[in-house]
Amino acid sequence: MNSTFVQFLGEFIGTFILILLGNGIVCAVSLKKTKAEGAGWIAIAFGWGLAVMLGVYSSSFMSEAHLNPAVTIGMALIGNISWSLVLPYIAGQFLGAMLASFILWLFYYPHWVETKDAAVILGCHSTGPAIRHFPSNFFGEVIGTMVLLIGILSFGRNHLADGLSPALVGGLITAIGFSLGATTGYSLNPARDLGPRIMHALLPIKNKGTSDWGYSWVPVLGPLVGGALGCLIFNSISPLIK
Amino acid sequence: MNSTFVQFLGEFIGTFILILLGNGIVCAVSLKKTKAEGAGWIAIAFGWGLAVMLGVYSSSFMSEAHLNPAVTIGMALIGNISWSLVLPYIAGQFLGAMLASFILWLFYYPHWVETKDAAVILGCHSTGPAIRHFPSNFFGEVIGTMVLLIGILSFGRNHLADGLSPALVGGLITAIGFSLGATTGYSLNPARDLGPRIMHALLPIKNKGTSDWGYSWVPVLGPLVGGALGCLIFNSISPLIK
Amino acid sequence: MNSTFVQFLGEFIGTFILILLGNGIVCAVSLKKTKAEGAGWIAIAFGWGLAVMLGVYSSSFMSEAHLNPAVTIGMALIGNISWSLVLPYIAGQFLGAMLASFILWLFYYPHWVETKDAAVILGCHSTGPAIRHFPSNFFGEVIGTMVLLIGILSFGRNHLADGLSPALVGGLITAIGFSLGATTGYSLNPARDLGPRIMHALLPIKNKGTSDWGYSWVPVLGPLVGGALGCLIFNSISPLIK
Amino acid sequence: MNSTFVQFLGEFIGTFILILLGNGIVCAVSLKKTKAEGAGWIAIAFGWGLAVMLGVYSSSFMSEAHLNPAVTIGMALIGNISWSLVLPYIAGQFLGAMLASFILWLFYYPHWVETKDAAVILGCHSTGPAIRHFPSNFFGEVIGTMVLLIGILSFGRNHLADGLSPALVGGLITAIGFSLGATTGYSLNPARDLGPRIMHALLPIKNKGTSDWGYSWVPVLGPLVGGALGCLIFNSISPLIK
Repeated sequence: MNSTFVQFLGEFIGTFILILLGNGIVCAVSLKKTKAEGAGWIAIAFGWGLAVMLGVYSSSFMSEAHLNPAVTIGMALIGNISWSLVLPYIAGQFLGAMLASFILWLFYYPHWVETKDAAVILGCHSTGPAIRHFPSNFFGEVIGTMVLLIGILSFGRNHLADGLSPALVGGLITAIGFSLGATTGYSLNPARDLGPRIMHALLPIKNKGTSDWGYSWVPVLGPLVGGALGCLIFNSISPLIK
Repeated sequence: MNSTFVQFLGEFIGTFILILLGNGIVCAVSLKKTKAEGAGWIAIAFGWGLAVMLGVYSSSFMSEAHLNPAVTIGMALIGNISWSLVLPYIAGQFLGAMLASFILWLFYYPHWVETKDAAVILGCHSTGPAIRHFPSNFFGEVIGTMVLLIGILSFGRNHLADGLSPALVGGLITAIGFSLGATTGYSLNPARDLGPRIMHALLPIKNKGTSDWGYSWVPVLGPLVGGALGCLIFNSISPLIK
Repeated sequence: MNSTFVQFLGEFIGTFILILLGNGIVCAVSLKKTKAEGAGWIAIAFGWGLAVMLGVYSSSFMSEAHLNPAVTIGMALIGNISWSLVLPYIAGQFLGAMLASFILWLFYYPHWVETKDAAVILGCHSTGPAIRHFPSNFFGEVIGTMVLLIGILSFGRNHLADGLSPALVGGLITAIGFSLGATTGYSLNPARDLGPRIMHALLPIKNKGTSDWGYSWVPVLGPLVGGALGCLIFNSISPLIK
Repeated sequence: MNSTFVQFLGEFIGTFILILLGNGIVCAVSLKKTKAEGAGWIAIAFGWGLAVMLGVYSSSFMSEAHLNPAVTIGMALIGNISWSLVLPYIAGQFLGAMLASFILWLFYYPHWVETKDAAVILGCHSTGPAIRHFPSNFFGEVIGTMVLLIGILSFGRNHLADGLSPALVGGLITAIGFSLGATTGYSLNPARDLGPRIMHALLPIKNKGTSDWGYSWVPVLGPLVGGALGCLIFNSISPLIK
């Protein structure tokens, strides 16, 4: 197994790639005067799926490639990873997400200037609900992340998934995006949502508005609860299976 | 082989994932004020393909991952599965589909309220024909399910498909959706159609209308006939092949 | 190796699946009042790619899964298949394509009635040019089929393609559809074009017009020439490679 | 290892396929009166991804399948390929790209005539910025190519990517196209951009305008810098990993 530092580096690089490509597709589709204007939700669902797949491929030889505190904490809960790795993992995840947000700010620089809608600019960083309804939004993030963790743990048990898991996790993210993502924008990942939200608050982005801190607990707490539930449910069934 | 209970559990969990993600994409695309409004038929075809693939990956280490009574009965007809498993399999499939419908009702709660068109609400549960024409609609479900079973049985004979079958079945569902799904909405699966239709009748969904029981036999009987035919045709050719 | 009859059967079944799903997506996207109206060229390109992939998976344990006379004749030219199999292969391919057209006529029955545009109805059977310009259209079919054969032969030489060839051929068809298909509708295959054109002429399809026999030689002769060229070019380079 | 000539041939054929299919999808989507008009950015992103995947599969048994001078030079910088191969590789890449441009001119002949917008015609050859802003455009090409090289080198280290690398590089190109391509059109490759631009200047294409030489250094120098950076960064981390 790699040293804690290399594992930290893996989470950092993997989450950097994940958010660079993931928030990148949101920027491409939503900011003004890009060549992808109008590519819409299909591009977003496939783009995020590819982002996760490539984030995992570019880090799973360094770390467990969780790239997500909800995964890390869920896995620690059921003993799949040592608690001593939780903090370095989450640190790497947040730093990677925040660096990616910074690079995207530079990358799309002239397009932020052209985009006058503050909600769009926040949406290129963090998720927001289609209809603001806290119980429903929270429930959505719980269910989405629960499905994500049950999927990931299933791939680990299913020999048909051997060698394909990063691609399958990418497909799972695309599927969750399509089917369970259109209500809250599917954070599923505290680092994916809170990291860029912090950068949104800090960076002097042209035309930006509020960082909507009032909603910000939903895409952090929802995934943490959902991830833990998914791990616990799977873990309770797992011993029954040959 | 796993115990009957674990196999029942596999069908339950797999069909739950299948319908949660499958009907989920229909909700995302059709209900009002979601972020996926307008993603259309391409999203539906890919979304259902991913739903089947992920349903199979999350259950095929517990059961045969049929997730579909038309598959289970067809397989029993040609001796690929014991008749004693047919009832527990179908029970798991229906319960999984019905639980998924219930969760989707909660998940999309504020969006059901915003959607005034009763036909859309029924369409998020069960299939309906583009043009109501019983012989044609029935024939469509027969042919679609026949192709599905011939495909599944081919993958089992083709060594090039080894280790890829869940992904290939997903691709097959996407293909059937694209090419043979636009007339009836491709039920192909009695549990996929009747389970959610029962929930549609039972749940106090805002703005819902009739459950269209007059059509409901088509997406149940058509798949059963098509599945049986597909299995019998393949089985009659199979002994000729080296 | 399987008997000639089983190989014939393989080509018959594989081409049946290919045209059922391939022309099926064209029907779904073009005929009136289907649920896929407006899914457009992206659905067509992915739909045909999946159709080829699934046609190959459902036949390559019976025959060489050419499903295309241009492939069969090209392969015979360079000695990859015995000339004695050419006739049974082509017979199976044409019969499979024609049966698929017949089934699609029944399948989409009420939708043919709703579609008043005779060009659309022919387009659900056979290809036609975006701009009628015989030298350019012929050149297009030659180049497209040449790329198809060079691709197929490359997959056979490339150990990275081992075990994936049906999926890769499907991806190649999607790519050719996207990049080289928008001028002529990419026949690439005499059986794919002429078989359904014969059925278009024979069947009493509502609202049908001419079968455009004046153009019909292009999507037959073009692929034959392109397939032969592709095979000969690859065969001249192949001995140089270790 | 193959002779230098066969490796040259591999780069030539692979880049020919890459640009034929890659610029082909741009032609299909942008030129007038094609059947793909309006398929848009989603088709472009998937089309280029497939083009790269198929370019690699059709050449990686002959050469290293770089198909891109930025990859070749980056790999030489970190000792993954001999400097003596750099010139033959780049020659093959440029010649392949230029031949593909020539074939596409013939292929889409009547469609160039119908297309009156000179910017569209140049866009079918070379990339151009959504917003002309040299520092941002240059930065964009650097970052995009850096991610490409980090991805490629990661696949080489990650045993989960074994045997899948051409497909993964294709997925990576689709992801970069979606997420980092909508600002400059993602050249990422000097041969992809400069080769066709030279052909644009030389060929008597109907309705063509300027070849925009003022911008032409960005999609050449940006990828060279980004590729070198990606290789150097990965190479500095790589020794730490077990």
